[in-house]
This record gives sequence, structure tokens and C-alpha cells, in this order.
Amino acid sequence: MRYAIIGTGAIGGFYGGKLARAGFDVHFLLHSDYDYVRSNGLRVDSCDGSFVINHPNVYISADAMPQCDVVLVALKTTANGLLPRLLRPLLTDGTLVVLIQNGVGVEADVEAALPGVQLAAGLAYVCSTKVGPGHIDHTSNGRITIGNYSCRDTALIDTLLADLGSAGIRAKAADCAEARWQKAVWNMPFNGPCSVLGQTTDRVLSSPAGERLVRALMGEVIGAARACGATGLDGSVGERMIEMTRNMPPYSPSMKVDCDLGRPMEIEYLYTKPIAMAREAGYAMPHMEVIEMQLRAIEDMRRAGAAAQPEQG
Amino acid sequence: MRYAIIGTGAIGGFYGGKLARAGFDVHFLLHSDYDYVRSNGLRVDSCDGSFVINHPNVYISADAMPQCDVVLVALKTTANGLLPRLLRPLLTDGTLVVLIQNGVGVEADVEAALPGVQLAAGLAYVCSTKVGPGHIDHTSNGRITIGNYSCRDTALIDTLLADLGSAGIRAKAADCAEARWQKAVWNMPFNGPCSVLGQTTDRVLSSPAGERLVRALMGEVIGAARACGATGLDGSVGERMIEMTRNMPPYSPSMKVDCDLGRPMEIEYLYTKPIAMAREAGYAMPHMEVIEMQLRAIEDMRRAGAAAQPEQG
Repeated sequence: MRYAIIGTGAIGGFYGGKLARAGFDVHFLLHSDYDYVRSNGLRVDSCDGSFVINHPNVYISADAMPQCDVVLVALKTTANGLLPRLLRPLLTDGTLVVLIQNGVGVEADVEAALPGVQLAAGLAYVCSTKVGPGHIDHTSNGRITIGNYSCRDTALIDTLLADLGSAGIRAKAADCAEARWQKAVWNMPFNGPCSVLGQTTDRVLSSPAGERLVRALMGEVIGAARACGATGLDGSVGERMIEMTRNMPPYSPSMKVDCDLGRPMEIEYLYTKPIAMAREAGYAMPHMEVIEMQLRAIEDMRRAGAAAQPEQG
Repeated sequence: MRYAIIGTGAIGGFYGGKLARAGFDVHFLLHSDYDYVRSNGLRVDSCDGSFVINHPNVYISADAMPQCDVVLVALKTTANGLLPRLLRPLLTDGTLVVLIQNGVGVEADVEAALPGVQLAAGLAYVCSTKVGPGHIDHTSNGRITIGNYSCRDTALIDTLLADLGSAGIRAKAADCAEARWQKAVWNMPFNGPCSVLGQTTDRVLSSPAGERLVRALMGEVIGAARACGATGLDGSVGERMIEMTRNMPPYSPSMKVDCDLGRPMEIEYLYTKPIAMAREAGYAMPHMEVIEMQLRAIEDMRRAGAAAQPEQG
């Protein structure tokens, strides 16, 4: 099995690094860290055991990469417009592309841009951060759920799960829609509110009104998930996620990090798409609509502010 | 006619000052500015003509004030717990208390605390700010709508309207609920979102998503108003308010000023009560509920932050 990692950051560097350490044939696409990693290797500081991959197979351009059996896409969805160009050189008829990305509705859009491609969702439950060039810090968890979307060769999924397992990663298969909506039960109530309010998860949950808001939003996600066919979602998932979040150290969800740094936020697949999909299935998400509009307004106003100011030298 | 002004700030100082300048018998209750105003008078810089009231009738305690025909209450609603104690010394059976305050549902609570008191709502459409002790800056508008709530002596309302008119203030009578809901069509969509997003009205409206949010919230207020019996609300009121706001200079609504300064916000009567009244009338305001929860969360987290930090010397 030959693996490609598209986006060697907190997520791609962690999963790709673990596979490479286990001896699999892994090919990493890098951008800003290319020169550094080519010289110094890829370093993963991990609560499960730290390691360095010396001389990994690194590429500055997808055109130079070999065709692969499995491509793990670990870019933010805000960069998905690049995917057709980045993926084409890597694909055979049998390649599986795993979108390790947040949100709901991602696969349909990638499939529309690359008809016939074999797709699966990858839902990563991992706390990892890129703390420097080619330097990943992994502090907890690490499991991943693979949801088959359009992979005809299901044996390939089984092999992927086995490879991940032998690389020390807890990996399981699930229904694609169910897996995406399940993660949305956490993502939608925490990412947007933490970004809008400028607060970490612990601060939001420490407030009675903040907890009320999280619960109201969770209720909408679970309702939307069921309307969209993810009927297997356990009703207690919200409670469990609130309990889990309470036990986490103070945490800035990825969208809040993006918001604080003035980077594009993953509004489209975390909010706009799932709200639209639920509406199409006859389920309204009026609470979530407010969060979506606020996030869009933050981006609108940031753009207007940037346009009004001369660039800094 | 003898007038009392409870709360001589941006609103009370403006309306009370205009009445005093026109020669009416006006008695001002002050708190922090008492000594300054007793020595230096009350100064109103106004786009309609600036003036100073030298030696106004000022009081540091309501107990020292005379009974009055009309009491204009210009405190924030967050201070309404003080009203029974502040009002009792001023009241005769015939006194009219005008609550020049934002929000919906204010009169019912004051009536419950002071059974039998004659009440009216005062909706001030005025841009004025307290810029220093006993110093009001009035930059535009100034009209006021008086909505009778429980005043048996309607001639008293007519006299009040005439007095305000002869003091140079455009004043008109309207149905109380209609007047309160009409102002809520502006207050609810702008105060909360500007506070949560930390932005002025012009910035919010400059964003397509911000404008979408304002319109969605306005739609809910108009629906709620009608459900609560304010059926006379013109459907075009939202458009007119957006247009008016677009033509205003960059503006921080009063709640945003309170939020920025860490002061209590008028969440109860601007959001919680009207949402509850609408729900009781069978109309849900799910968008507005999110704004309410976010504002409450901001106050919760501020309190938690204040409790966690030692007081500054």
C-alpha cells in the first residue's frame, strides 16, 4: 500500500507520521515547511511516544508525486478548491481518497469536481497542533473513524483500517453520513460560539447561558442528523460530548484559532452546507442560522477592514 | 405642572433640561453628579441650540423631593429594582410616572411593585450622551412617543404632550404596546448583535451577512409584535429603520456601550421579556433566543472572570 498525505500539518503530519514510522510507504506533500522537513525530518511529539521521521518522502508539488493506493487529505476545507489539481497526479482508477476534514457535505462537492473518484470521510478525534516547521505536538486521543462514501473496493477500506491499527491508531469503520453528523454534534455547537464570543470551550460551558446555548445548538444538530438519514445517532451523544468537553483542558476549537489569526474559517462545511441539507430534508435550524450569519459577518467585516487599510510592510 | 426627573443622564438631562429651560418647575434627582451640578448647573450642548440651567432644583435623595404631577424615569431598566423606593416620596394619587426606558414589558413589572400607580411608556428617539458631569451632548433627533399604560387622567397626558411641545420637543401619543414594540424593531436587531460582535451599526450593515442577520431578527420582532397585539405595526417599518440606520454616523447602541464598559446590560427587557411574551402569545423567536443566550453568556463569563481576579487597587 502506498500512501499520500495532502497537507502535512497537525492532522496529516500526525497520521502520516505514524504510518511512516510503522514502515508504510508514505509520500508527504508540503508547502511552507518543505525545505525544513527535507533537511530535518518530521517530528511528532506525542503522548503515545515521540518520534522523528528522518528523510521522509517529501514533495513541494503534487505533480512530482507517485500514484498512490490511498490519499489522506488533511487540508482545511477552505482549500478544497485546490483538490482537483492536487489529486489528479496521484489517482489511479483504484485510488481511495480519504477526506480527513471537518464538516458535513464535503464528499458530494469533491465528487462533483472529480467524477468517479473513490471517496471516504475521515473523522479525526485527536488533539494535535503544529507547533513549528515539521513539528507536531500530539497531546491526547488520536482515533479516527472512516466512513465509506463511494469506494467500490471495500477491501481497500479494510486494508486501510488494518494499516492504521498496526501503526498504533484506533481506527473503525462507520456509515459516512452518521460519522460526519456525529462529529458535527460537537463541532457545530462549539466552533462557532467559541469564535463569535472569543472564548475557550471551558469558559463557554462554565456559563449557565453558554451551556444552554450549546445544548440548544446540539439539539438542532441531532434533529438535523436524523432528518438527513443519520438515524443511528444515539440520543445521549450530546450529554456525552458535553461531559467529555468539561473534562478537557481549556480548548480553542480550530475555527476559533482561525478566527483569532484572521485566517478563513470553515463556515461552508461546518454551517452553511449542513443547514442547507437539513432544510432540504424539511428540518429548520434557526439557532444555527444565527451562528452562521454571525461568522459570515465577522469574515465580511474583516475583509472590509483589510480593504480599507494599506498593507503593512 | 411639577416635574421630577429620576436619573439625570443622557436622557433625563436632555428632556428635563429642555423642560426647565422652557420655565417649567423641574426637580432633578442626581447621584454621582449632584455636587457638580449644584455648583455648576446642568449643561446641554445641543444641535437644536445649547444652553445651561443655572441653579436647577437638584436632590441627592428622592426623600427630599416634593410630590410631583409627572415623574420622568430615565434610569436604565437594570436599576428598576430601586424604583419603589425612589418613586414613593414623589407620588400622589394623581401622579403620572413615565418610563423613558428601552424594552418591552417594563410597565407590568413596575405596576406589580407599585400597585395603582399611573404609568405611561416614553420612547425616546434621540442621540444624546453624557460627556461629563452634568454635561449632555445632543447630536440629533429628540422626539418622544408617550404610550399610556394605566393613566386614568388622560388630560394629564395631553398636558404633558403640550408642555413637551412648548419646550421644543416633538411629542406624540401612541398605543403603549405598539410604541414599545415599534422601538424594539430597532433595538432588538441592533443592540445585541452589535454587543456580541463588538461592532458599530454601520459596520454590521456594511456586511451582507450582518444585514441578513438584522433583517432576520427584525422579521421576528415584527411577528412577535403582531402576536402580542401590536397589530398596527406597519410592515415597512423594518425597511425604514434599516435605511435610517444606514444614514446615521457610526453608532454604538447603548447596550454595546454598556458591554464595552463592563456595565450590566439591559438584557431582561430588551430580550428575555419580549421573547417570553411572544412565546406566551404562541410566537417563537428562535433567532433572538440565540442573541439572548449569547448576551447572558457574556455577563456570566464576565462575572466569573471578575470573581477569579482580585480587585484592583
